[in-house]
Amino acid sequence: METAQLLFICYIIAIVAEAMTAALAAGRREMDWVGVYLLGCITALGGGSVRDVLLGRYPLTWVEHPHYLLITGFAALFTILIARYMHHLRHVFLFLDAVGLVVFTVIGCNIAMGMNMPVIIIIASGMITGCMGGVLRDVLCADVPLLFRAELYATVSIVTGLLYVTGEWLGLPHDAVMIGAMIFGLALRLMAIRFSWGMPKFVYTKTLH
Amino acid sequence: METAQLLFICYIIAIVAEAMTAALAAGRREMDWVGVYLLGCITALGGGSVRDVLLGRYPLTWVEHPHYLLITGFAALFTILIARYMHHLRHVFLFLDAVGLVVFTVIGCNIAMGMNMPVIIIIASGMITGCMGGVLRDVLCADVPLLFRAELYATVSIVTGLLYVTGEWLGLPHDAVMIGAMIFGLALRLMAIRFSWGMPKFVYTKTLH
Amino acid sequence: METAQLLFICYIIAIVAEAMTAALAAGRREMDWVGVYLLGCITALGGGSVRDVLLGRYPLTWVEHPHYLLITGFAALFTILIARYMHHLRHVFLFLDAVGLVVFTVIGCNIAMGMNMPVIIIIASGMITGCMGGVLRDVLCADVPLLFRAELYATVSIVTGLLYVTGEWLGLPHDAVMIGAMIFGLALRLMAIRFSWGMPKFVYTKTLH
Repeated sequence: METAQLLFICYIIAIVAEAMTAALAAGRREMDWVGVYLLGCITALGGGSVRDVLLGRYPLTWVEHPHYLLITGFAALFTILIARYMHHLRHVFLFLDAVGLVVFTVIGCNIAMGMNMPVIIIIASGMITGCMGGVLRDVLCADVPLLFRAELYATVSIVTGLLYVTGEWLGLPHDAVMIGAMIFGLALRLMAIRFSWGMPKFVYTKTLH
Repeated sequence: METAQLLFICYIIAIVAEAMTAALAAGRREMDWVGVYLLGCITALGGGSVRDVLLGRYPLTWVEHPHYLLITGFAALFTILIARYMHHLRHVFLFLDAVGLVVFTVIGCNIAMGMNMPVIIIIASGMITGCMGGVLRDVLCADVPLLFRAELYATVSIVTGLLYVTGEWLGLPHDAVMIGAMIFGLALRLMAIRFSWGMPKFVYTKTLH
Repeated sequence: METAQLLFICYIIAIVAEAMTAALAAGRREMDWVGVYLLGCITALGGGSVRDVLLGRYPLTWVEHPHYLLITGFAALFTILIARYMHHLRHVFLFLDAVGLVVFTVIGCNIAMGMNMPVIIIIASGMITGCMGGVLRDVLCADVPLLFRAELYATVSIVTGLLYVTGEWLGLPHDAVMIGAMIFGLALRLMAIRFSWGMPKFVYTKTLH
């Protein structure tokens, strides 16, 4: 199997997993089935959409492949059926969510590389693709985005992107670099969950006015 | 009168009605007059703007017709003057809001059809045009969007779009299909309000972590 | 020194100041360091990004000048180090924030003028550039945007833009008009803070349903 195919399969697994965890967030806000469907689509496909809009890259992924709107929406609805078992599957979903993070990141980097963007924008493109879906989910749930507060989520995306770009810059074999960066990022994220690693927080209580 | 003219008149009525209901939402958050003006513009014109940005269709409607920013903004300000009577007019506004929903939906479908988009994107374009203005309003008021929780709002938009697309696909007369889809959608929305119809809700109380 | 250079220097000072005040907002929400970095970038560069996306003007400023993502991000991180002294510097930052508002406004007007946009869009472009970064900051902090409630913030931006456009229309010397509009806007904003001037608020307590 080629690496491009592997990446594609991981992408489909990732958007399904993101849609299913978004469905649980919708359930915690007591949204109706249409809300569950929409939040699933927006969370799974929103990161790539924000990236494409910011880079001016048209058509957007889901406009070119409209069935992604069905895959992610129905994955979200399916979650309602199996919600009572989701708690037992939480380790599976935390794992799939971490897979999604690194796969989205690498795809985002690839797209910016294909547009000959400078290195900072390649990292930013990976991070936006990996993280912005979750930010949209949290904003639509009227929460402060977890991204800005959670264990190494954005950090994992940045580190994965940095490794990938550095490996490419060193002229190492493309596929090995890409897979290596994803495995390192995945391991970092899983260890961060396991050991509750987090960036230090900044706590400020005064107001400027 | 031609159908295009009728649709245009309905569109103007709809953006005015959306701006006026947005002004009431602004008043519930104690926004100042500038906030009322801006929330009116964003709510009335935001759905079409999100659609155009996602489809890469430039210039945006209000950039091409800047006086829409005056019409909607001053409609919102005018609402402050007549706020004390708005409660008595609430049936009128619920009706106009429902008209806006189906008119926006059909306009959004028309635009995607004109770009030769696949059928799923036509439905999505209609729904984004019809519903996203209200989502922006709710996010700017720091609320969980009503769309994700309310009576058949997005559903009405999807059903209207589906009817419209199906009629076109069957080769029925264009104007009849468009007006028929709007009337059905309008009736469905009004009955949903009258009888408190809603999609089932998904309630989930656990967290994955 | 030419006016373009002066405007550029003011722009850099403004994005640094915006990033630093955004860092304090992040601290009040107990975000981690990555959140502080990202909120700094988004607040400082978000207004211009929203403007460019709405006007279909690519590449975005920070895509063309990626080091802006480093300047604003590290300015935000630096704020953590000096947070304990920020309270004593609050007058400086309120001043720099006001400078940023009028500088961003004039830059936004310039860009729309360069695209031969109609006058309403020039004003809107200035206001979006000046104010939207703060709206994104507040939405990401799950607050109702201050813009819609605060002392003359958006109003200052609109007045600055109106003065600038009127001066250009009257054929007055370009640089004098631009600097004059900025100084008037700056004075208006500082007086609004000093004397707690504000637009009247619209308070509405009923619901339409």
